Amino acid sequence: MSVEKLQQYREQMRTELDKVVDFWQKYSHDTQYGGFFTCIGKDGKIYDELKYVWLQGRQVWMYCRLYRTMERFNKPEILEAAKSGGAFLQRFARIPNSGSPWKCAFCLTRDGKALKVQRTIFSECFYVMAMDELARVTGDKDMQAEAAQMMDQLVHWVRVDPSGLGKPQLSGDTPVCSMAVPMMLLCLVQQLTEARSGEEVDKYREVGGWCVKQILQHIQRGGTAILESVSSEGKELPGCEGRLQNPGHALEAGWFLLQYGLENGDQELQRTAVDKFMEIPFLTGWDKEHGGLLYFLDVDGYCPTQLEWSMKLWWPHCEALIAYLMAYSHTKEPVLLERFTQVYDYTFSHFSDAENGEWFGYLTQQGKVTLDFKGGPFKGFFHVPRCLYMCEKILDSILNKQES
Amino acid sequence: MSVEKLQQYREQMRTELDKVVDFWQKYSHDTQYGGFFTCIGKDGKIYDELKYVWLQGRQVWMYCRLYRTMERFNKPEILEAAKSGGAFLQRFARIPNSGSPWKCAFCLTRDGKALKVQRTIFSECFYVMAMDELARVTGDKDMQAEAAQMMDQLVHWVRVDPSGLGKPQLSGDTPVCSMAVPMMLLCLVQQLTEARSGEEVDKYREVGGWCVKQILQHIQRGGTAILESVSSEGKELPGCEGRLQNPGHALEAGWFLLQYGLENGDQELQRTAVDKFMEIPFLTGWDKEHGGLLYFLDVDGYCPTQLEWSMKLWWPHCEALIAYLMAYSHTKEPVLLERFTQVYDYTFSHFSDAENGEWFGYLTQQGKVTLDFKGGPFKGFFHVPRCLYMCEKILDSILNKQES
Repeated sequence: MSVEKLQQYREQMRTELDKVVDFWQKYSHDTQYGGFFTCIGKDGKIYDELKYVWLQGRQVWMYCRLYRTMERFNKPEILEAAKSGGAFLQRFARIPNSGSPWKCAFCLTRDGKALKVQRTIFSECFYVMAMDELARVTGDKDMQAEAAQMMDQLVHWVRVDPSGLGKPQLSGDTPVCSMAVPMMLLCLVQQLTEARSGEEVDKYREVGGWCVKQILQHIQRGGTAILESVSSEGKELPGCEGRLQNPGHALEAGWFLLQYGLENGDQELQRTAVDKFMEIPFLTGWDKEHGGLLYFLDVDGYCPTQLEWSMKLWWPHCEALIAYLMAYSHTKEPVLLERFTQVYDYTFSHFSDAENGEWFGYLTQQGKVTLDFKGGPFKGFFHVPRCLYMCEKILDSILNKQES
Repeated sequence: MSVEKLQQYREQMRTELDKVVDFWQKYSHDTQYGGFFTCIGKDGKIYDELKYVWLQGRQVWMYCRLYRTMERFNKPEILEAAKSGGAFLQRFARIPNSGSPWKCAFCLTRDGKALKVQRTIFSECFYVMAMDELARVTGDKDMQAEAAQMMDQLVHWVRVDPSGLGKPQLSGDTPVCSMAVPMMLLCLVQQLTEARSGEEVDKYREVGGWCVKQILQHIQRGGTAILESVSSEGKELPGCEGRLQNPGHALEAGWFLLQYGLENGDQELQRTAVDKFMEIPFLTGWDKEHGGLLYFLDVDGYCPTQLEWSMKLWWPHCEALIAYLMAYSHTKEPVLLERFTQVYDYTFSHFSDAENGEWFGYLTQQGKVTLDFKGGPFKGFFHVPRCLYMCEKILDSILNKQES
């Protein structure tokens, strides 16, 4: 592929990232109560004032990451918005009377009252991610320590005793390993160890190794499938749950593993990341008739029971773009750039909204926008800007090497 | 409309009901562990062995109702299947260590181990419905008493103290009245009072009156909208939750209210049931471009956040058929028969599967089958046969009157 084409991609990523950041700066800031609105219509109108904790944490993280690592976003208004979000989270996210001082709500009212709580670890994960990145920008050591303490609690819930999460013990509920959990912890390990050293980091590296081992257990069927949930012994589970494939998740795990393999000089892991976690979801998940990645699939070809299984969601496409471009930049295998190009063409022609900025999130299988908002309970300032940011960075590095 | 046309409808309902009963008798019975498989593919193949408690209870109820009130189903194999389901529920549905002796699981393994529990009342509601109807068939007084005791617990959870359901108290979680709760209780009141009298019945009638009052609170916007959730003071709630419309639910509430109004000679309630709970969902929920009833709508025209909002599901169409036919049979207003005909034409041409029997449950907005199974975690032997059964009964009564 020509340098011109790669430069074109970089230009598109950069322009789009600027537009997306503008959109959220313009519409999402709650100057009255702090934090961010996330339910934002196609033209920027707030259609619900609820504040979802995942999305508050992700937006703080994304603003700080842009502020810290991309010069054109190193601006006081970005930092101020991130700090406002961080203060809102510190003040309201945790639920004092839930039995654990670290349990966070899933959803808050505009003024910070807890409305819903999940019996999982993800609100807390995004809290850690936000606080650690914010502490890197502000130098706030107490905040960094708070993130580290919550991380210890997360690891305890996952590896030692989940009872603090509030799920009742049921006789038929044998432990299930969902890929989301080790993926998320691995992401936090990378967040907490970046450019740091010492005892804390060694501790996290052990956790990181455990996460990688857990994620690799999801390679099933003699290496031909990535399954979303397996037993705690790493075996296939019975029924729909056991047969479920989530191509977007596999691709996201793919670039997490590739990055971890690169950092640790683990070539076998790099190869597995590409051959298993990036190639398999493409072969099984790409819709050959209508284009785009399907949301869920059953490995034996049954119909998934998720009503949205055949829809095209924005985030698997974001993860695919990062995965294929990252893999290409390290292997230089042309097929990976082909994959990137194919996903790129679908993504920019279907999700990006030229009229009002930002991306639509939810299309029918046929590629028609079916939910037209830009932000919702699960779509915030995260997958789109992280994808554009990472792709711009990777393209920078590919092009700089080619030019030098 | 001609008598011939109505006879044609009745013939279709009858034939279809026979086919649907055959399908579930043939494929759903678990002769090894008892109870029913509910995850059944388009051609009858079991694709998951989990047993959802809602669907176990509903199937027991439906079999018993058919056995008790339709001569051609008064067959020992129907009764045996119902008893097997009832025994499975009695043995396994309740969770002994959950804090309440009446709390039931949501989902069981094939051999009856509890796998999931919801913090709502619906598993218990379908347990009551099943046990009371089964007791009517078998004359088992202990079983009838068990259903009555669980009903008392349900009413206590709903009207006095919900803490036994396991939801944590959260500061922003102000009480919300969801239409599903009084609807379900009203349905149980009708189940428990049918052809009975005495003190128990008087107690339930008071509950029934309360349910009706609660349901009527969902008429909002000066009588122009039925909203799915309102505040405990009967006011509109803020945001998406407050603006949500669920046309299928409104229609189901409509025929519950009409039936209750007829039983109690309440003409005003009968009128409200038709004008508000049947007419409004049609005007707002019928898809003028593609036909069929949309699943969710926002009363102000925002895009709902439910990914499946624009899909066409089988059960709202079932409820619509019952509602319009019941309303027509009592009012003889031609517009109601027109509504019935319009829904009938869409339903039988889109959901019914001539090839393998039973109905598909999930279509795209455009009317294409997108989940092709006949049974799943939320689709069992209930809405389709109840609709066919009720429509056949109502058509019988219309035609008998015309003929006499």
